[in-house]
Amino acid sequence: MAAFDSTEHPHRRFNALNGEWVLVSPHRSKRPWQGQQETPDAEQRPAYDPGCYLCPGNTRANGAVNPTYTNTFVFDNDFAALLPDTPAGFIDESGLLRAEAESGVGRVICFSPRHDLTLPEMSTPDIRKVVDLWADEFLALGTQPDINYVQIFENKGTMMGCSNPHPHGQIWAQRTVPSEPAKETVQQLAYYQQHGRTLLADYLGIELEKKERVVLENDHFVVLVPFWAVWPFETLLVARRPVQDITQLAPEERDALADAIRRLTIRYDNLFNISFPYSAGLHQRPTDGQEHPEWHLHMHFYPPLLRSATVRKFMVGYEMLGNPQRDITPEFSADRLRSLPEVHYKAATQ
Amino acid sequence: MAAFDSTEHPHRRFNALNGEWVLVSPHRSKRPWQGQQETPDAEQRPAYDPGCYLCPGNTRANGAVNPTYTNTFVFDNDFAALLPDTPAGFIDESGLLRAEAESGVGRVICFSPRHDLTLPEMSTPDIRKVVDLWADEFLALGTQPDINYVQIFENKGTMMGCSNPHPHGQIWAQRTVPSEPAKETVQQLAYYQQHGRTLLADYLGIELEKKERVVLENDHFVVLVPFWAVWPFETLLVARRPVQDITQLAPEERDALADAIRRLTIRYDNLFNISFPYSAGLHQRPTDGQEHPEWHLHMHFYPPLLRSATVRKFMVGYEMLGNPQRDITPEFSADRLRSLPEVHYKAATQ
Ligand SMILES: O=P(O)(O)O[C@H]1O[C@H](CO)[C@@H](O)[C@H](O)[C@H]1O
Ligand SMILES: O=P(O)(O)O[C@H]1O[C@H](CO)[C@@H](O)[C@H](O)[C@H]1O
Repeated sequence: MAAFDSTEHPHRRFNALNGEWVLVSPHRSKRPWQGQQETPDAEQRPAYDPGCYLCPGNTRANGAVNPTYTNTFVFDNDFAALLPDTPAGFIDESGLLRAEAESGVGRVICFSPRHDLTLPEMSTPDIRKVVDLWADEFLALGTQPDINYVQIFENKGTMMGCSNPHPHGQIWAQRTVPSEPAKETVQQLAYYQQHGRTLLADYLGIELEKKERVVLENDHFVVLVPFWAVWPFETLLVARRPVQDITQLAPEERDALADAIRRLTIRYDNLFNISFPYSAGLHQRPTDGQEHPEWHLHMHFYPPLLRSATVRKFMVGYEMLGNPQRDITPEFSADRLRSLPEVHYKAATQ
Repeated sequence: MAAFDSTEHPHRRFNALNGEWVLVSPHRSKRPWQGQQETPDAEQRPAYDPGCYLCPGNTRANGAVNPTYTNTFVFDNDFAALLPDTPAGFIDESGLLRAEAESGVGRVICFSPRHDLTLPEMSTPDIRKVVDLWADEFLALGTQPDINYVQIFENKGTMMGCSNPHPHGQIWAQRTVPSEPAKETVQQLAYYQQHGRTLLADYLGIELEKKERVVLENDHFVVLVPFWAVWPFETLLVARRPVQDITQLAPEERDALADAIRRLTIRYDNLFNISFPYSAGLHQRPTDGQEHPEWHLHMHFYPPLLRSATVRKFMVGYEMLGNPQRDITPEFSADRLRSLPEVHYKAATQ
């Protein structure tokens, strides 16, 4: 019998960052697809849409009027899942029915006044303004006494539940630390206590030596397909310097973050020549007033597409009841992403 | 300030079965929806489709010919994610890059020769044949030395990644215990060690007293919307008797399981008058040769729809990076499901 080969044989990989496993089935990518076909989002949009509740000067559902903003714009979500004034309280019946009140804030961040742009079509200086706003919001929200975690994220594309194509992201900030950063805290802390270095610093060191999963680099950030990636073209954007949060980034590091986001999202759009859908977000230290030397700033990108603009990966029966499963290997995906140009396909064909 | 009210105020609920949290935002259900609209699957299908690779007598992609089966039919998945003959092996670099070979089996189960049926349209005796096949397969696969978990599931509807409408489910059986049943083992074992009863027996006792989350009952099974439900109309089907796996069910209990599945899936179809998509599956004891007195047989149903046949819940940015979040309360969903008739809408309008 042949020796075990992770490019060919089914195997499980361990996510060192959150402690969970993913099943990898490299041989399965040949399976024919007769299921649901996705419809890519429309390519052409006006620079200003009078019916868009995020465009400058427009009126929102609750009657508020947006300023005629020229860079970024942030406001409290009109339909926030978290509210600041939740009365405290809890339920506990025999440890089996347990609930507790949760308070927090939901914010919406418009990346640009232009309705027709997305991050990969914006300039690096304009993305830098988004980075600065993320830092300002992290500081403002994270220093509130009842906010112990600040989750900054973007849902891009209708396929990812985004209901408005105007380039925007969200912040959900709350009293408790959500599950995913809580799991990452456990893993990072255990590693830090054992080694005195952050888990991601050492992981990055290994990946930079091997190169096979690295997609792009600049002076301050590296984008790679993590060894344990779940989504077909999932990536991890890691700071070279082990900082705990975005406010600690120096000006040139903020520029570098904007550069890395721009170059990655251009590659994504170029993969299938469409505006590439994903959910993405920053993971940073909890804002619980503790030191978190174990925390290492990073950003996750979770795109749903698998083979083409119209065929996605479904995380369904086995994945919901068992554990996540992927068909193509992370190494294959990294290779695909690495081979793509960093000139946006729309600019290239003009 | 008003007292905490879980029907109104944002809160977190603890999933006693897997140890995770879900954020509940009851006030948020009023949010307008301008995002992606789903297309319900076609209602009319022929009883036999010459192009279907699951219909009796047809030839599959690999050249195999299906028997002219008259009840159920099971075969090895032609594109299985798990393979029996994987060579053993592992990767471990500094604990950061960890992988191990995985072996197993993928099986496909046709529920009926009829291409045009789904579980809610089948008779209870015909669903009972599916239950018997599940039991036979659990026994046959679970007693193989290298199979330590047998995951039986169904993806129903194109929205759940199902590529063929012919009524069928799958089995993925493998060497290791996947994440979800592993988490449920931890929680159930801790409870059993402390109380000498299964967690689900005690949880069921509480729910049967309260009634507010119970959807339907028969002599041997109860279907309820669990206190910690993540998906809008998620349900949990629980055996009244704490059995570890489906092979332990007496004949009348197997009939009752078929009855509960039929009645639940009819209610699901009647909710929005469509063939209701979901992923569902049995959770049972690991087949690792250990006693598992803590394990209590149950079945999860995870349907994606939220408000109508065309508006689904997206588990995206916050959910992927933070933790699952739901808008309507489990109690509201249970009430909706309870109010529906158990005559299928197609039969009712004929
Ligand atoms: O095996 P199928 O039906 O082709 O595939 C479907 O179910 C599998 C198991 O949940 C998933 O891994 C696939 O993403 C999904 O499309
Ligand atoms: O807040 P939005 O953009 O209306 O809604 C979207 O993102 C949220 C946060 O990930 C999700 O809870 C919703 O299901 C999704 O549709």
